[in-house]
Amino acid sequence: MKAGSELLKRQQTPIHFRNKDMDFMLNWSLGISQLIGMSPGEILLIAQKIRNGQPQDWESGFKQHAHYLAEQARRSLEKGYCRTASQQYFGACYALKAALQFSDPRLPDYQSNYDRMEEYFSKGSHLANLPLQEITIPYQNTHLPGYYLKSRREKQPTLLVIGGGDTGRADLFYFLGQKAFQADYNVLMVDLPGQGINPARNLTFTVDAGQAVSAVLDWYDAPSGAIALAGLSGGGYFTAQAVEKDKRIKAWIASTPIYDIKAVFQHSFGRLSALPNPVLQFAGSLLSSVSAVTAVQLKKYAWQFGTENFSQAVKEVLKQAYTVNIDKISVPSLFLAGKGEDAELIRQAKVLAQNLSARDIPAALKEFDSLSGADAHCQVNNLRLMNHIVLDWLDMTFKNR
Amino acid sequence: MKAGSELLKRQQTPIHFRNKDMDFMLNWSLGISQLIGMSPGEILLIAQKIRNGQPQDWESGFKQHAHYLAEQARRSLEKGYCRTASQQYFGACYALKAALQFSDPRLPDYQSNYDRMEEYFSKGSHLANLPLQEITIPYQNTHLPGYYLKSRREKQPTLLVIGGGDTGRADLFYFLGQKAFQADYNVLMVDLPGQGINPARNLTFTVDAGQAVSAVLDWYDAPSGAIALAGLSGGGYFTAQAVEKDKRIKAWIASTPIYDIKAVFQHSFGRLSALPNPVLQFAGSLLSSVSAVTAVQLKKYAWQFGTENFSQAVKEVLKQAYTVNIDKISVPSLFLAGKGEDAELIRQAKVLAQNLSARDIPAALKEFDSLSGADAHCQVNNLRLMNHIVLDWLDMTFKNR
Repeated sequence: MKAGSELLKRQQTPIHFRNKDMDFMLNWSLGISQLIGMSPGEILLIAQKIRNGQPQDWESGFKQHAHYLAEQARRSLEKGYCRTASQQYFGACYALKAALQFSDPRLPDYQSNYDRMEEYFSKGSHLANLPLQEITIPYQNTHLPGYYLKSRREKQPTLLVIGGGDTGRADLFYFLGQKAFQADYNVLMVDLPGQGINPARNLTFTVDAGQAVSAVLDWYDAPSGAIALAGLSGGGYFTAQAVEKDKRIKAWIASTPIYDIKAVFQHSFGRLSALPNPVLQFAGSLLSSVSAVTAVQLKKYAWQFGTENFSQAVKEVLKQAYTVNIDKISVPSLFLAGKGEDAELIRQAKVLAQNLSARDIPAALKEFDSLSGADAHCQVNNLRLMNHIVLDWLDMTFKNR
Repeated sequence: MKAGSELLKRQQTPIHFRNKDMDFMLNWSLGISQLIGMSPGEILLIAQKIRNGQPQDWESGFKQHAHYLAEQARRSLEKGYCRTASQQYFGACYALKAALQFSDPRLPDYQSNYDRMEEYFSKGSHLANLPLQEITIPYQNTHLPGYYLKSRREKQPTLLVIGGGDTGRADLFYFLGQKAFQADYNVLMVDLPGQGINPARNLTFTVDAGQAVSAVLDWYDAPSGAIALAGLSGGGYFTAQAVEKDKRIKAWIASTPIYDIKAVFQHSFGRLSALPNPVLQFAGSLLSSVSAVTAVQLKKYAWQFGTENFSQAVKEVLKQAYTVNIDKISVPSLFLAGKGEDAELIRQAKVLAQNLSARDIPAALKEFDSLSGADAHCQVNNLRLMNHIVLDWLDMTFKNR
């Protein structure tokens, strides 16, 4: 992997950086700006001061801006400017989240920064008069952290949002939570094992994420039987596991849906498992052939898998992961895929849509081309469009609303 | 004026184009993406296909994308996807508006494209369930076109939004109208003489815009005496004229406030009036020393002034315009200014804030630095922040709400 090559293909239109993983993160931050927090101009100004492919520049640039915004929020609040303070806290939250994306989670200040990021999220939400509840869901001998936004109307449907390998529960708010709540859905946003800050207490990725999703529904006192499950990125696999087995789920949205995680890992990371472990482990510091951006991401993923390095994680996935039996999935489904995404992800989405349709189960596959501005992974480059399509589809699916 | 130099200083942080007026328009489009319509990624993709300083590239790029989005909206509507169609119509509206920014208004298809732009706006609004009313306000022996969003709650305050030399009534929606309506204000968005498509029926800029603002209030059946007036860009002068004389206005917001328009024209365009008329008139086609971007803008402004060319307009302003008597302004005022703006605009904002404060009239001057991402003209690079500050201030000013 040369500097400039990407860990996973997630977009096709370059924005600013030659390093594709860094450019994807910029694209993602710009996408968030469509819905909440910082402005596009604000983000591009930070980006202009970051050297291509230098994760420490990225980390310090976004961290500094997060501190600036948090200070601005405090000043706004002193004047009684609640809307302004809310926006600034949300901006601080997602600026700090962007910084953490290229931080080593094993360094001591990672967790305190993560906690601060969630504190900003909580402040932003409450100042926006959102009835945000922090929830703690019993799971095995521990718990899963989440947020709950209970609809102000009675007996509304529920949307449970699940992220992937780069998200925490605060991300699930702009990905779908905010707009779904505004559209009168009850919204649950939960971090499964391996997600958010869970790995810090050794709650790492698990073979059957479906059990964790079911634990959420066991705990949840649903106001209506209309329960939809949405999975983003790796969440496309976790939710597939849940939909296969838990019949309380009545609708499924995935961007993109994944039933065969081994094939995805083989396709994207197979070349990594061929390298000897120490090479990958120390790649960032020793080898110029692996970019610093790739190195810090691999460290983070290894931490989430609870393995010493990422190549070991890949080997474990290829050995242990199970493939979802798609014939057992029988709920109306909306699948989203961008033309800028990895070919294997698009292939699995097509297989799933065809399989469901052949069994007369309503299934729609929406493929986003570059003109739509939503062709990147998880539609991060046009999150407003993705939100609207999901909610339009959900309203029609739960048409007795 | 060399290629790359700007007609009016409106920002300090470059985004993509060397031509500063084109880069400002890009910045503005990105700012709109924060609130409505297209995504930042969608806009940057269009920009990547535009050659620096080539207005015809800009015009055709944004026009094509507007047609694409309108077609997408029709398809979404066929499927019953109303939220999606609404976003796509809004996107089509503002893509077409961006195209018209660098179009010659004397060419035959300008008006039909302008009408189509407003048609997209209307469709987007109705699909978003906004109670948008087209209004026609008697003014002298003709009328002023506008939009009215009546609050769903009784006896709410009103915000009348007035734009400048580059806006139409549809722009006033994202500038302040949408968020103010969401915050339970009644919202009026009106095109004064010289604005929007008014010049096409010879309703060009007038010496006393205050009379036009008063005509709106004469016509308006206000649900409450709490009436605020907001002026953006040139609207900072038009609203100053109104606030000086019409005592029905109880609060004033201006970004930026202008009491001495002659000084602004002298400072920004004085060098133009020194050139012989034919040079300016044919500058775009004959002289490489005036950029094509500047040339098309000057044509548009001349059309809005009802003069043969812009240098004649400048001469008329310097001869006829009157300076507002700031000692007669006596309402609580919020002034917004960006550090990237022309020095004369910032100077007048400071003079006004000091004058009002010295007379114990509540006046706040908010200056945006580059870190805020809102330092451009009219805060186009962080419109969400500008909206929140204005609404927080308005809520406190009309505190009996």
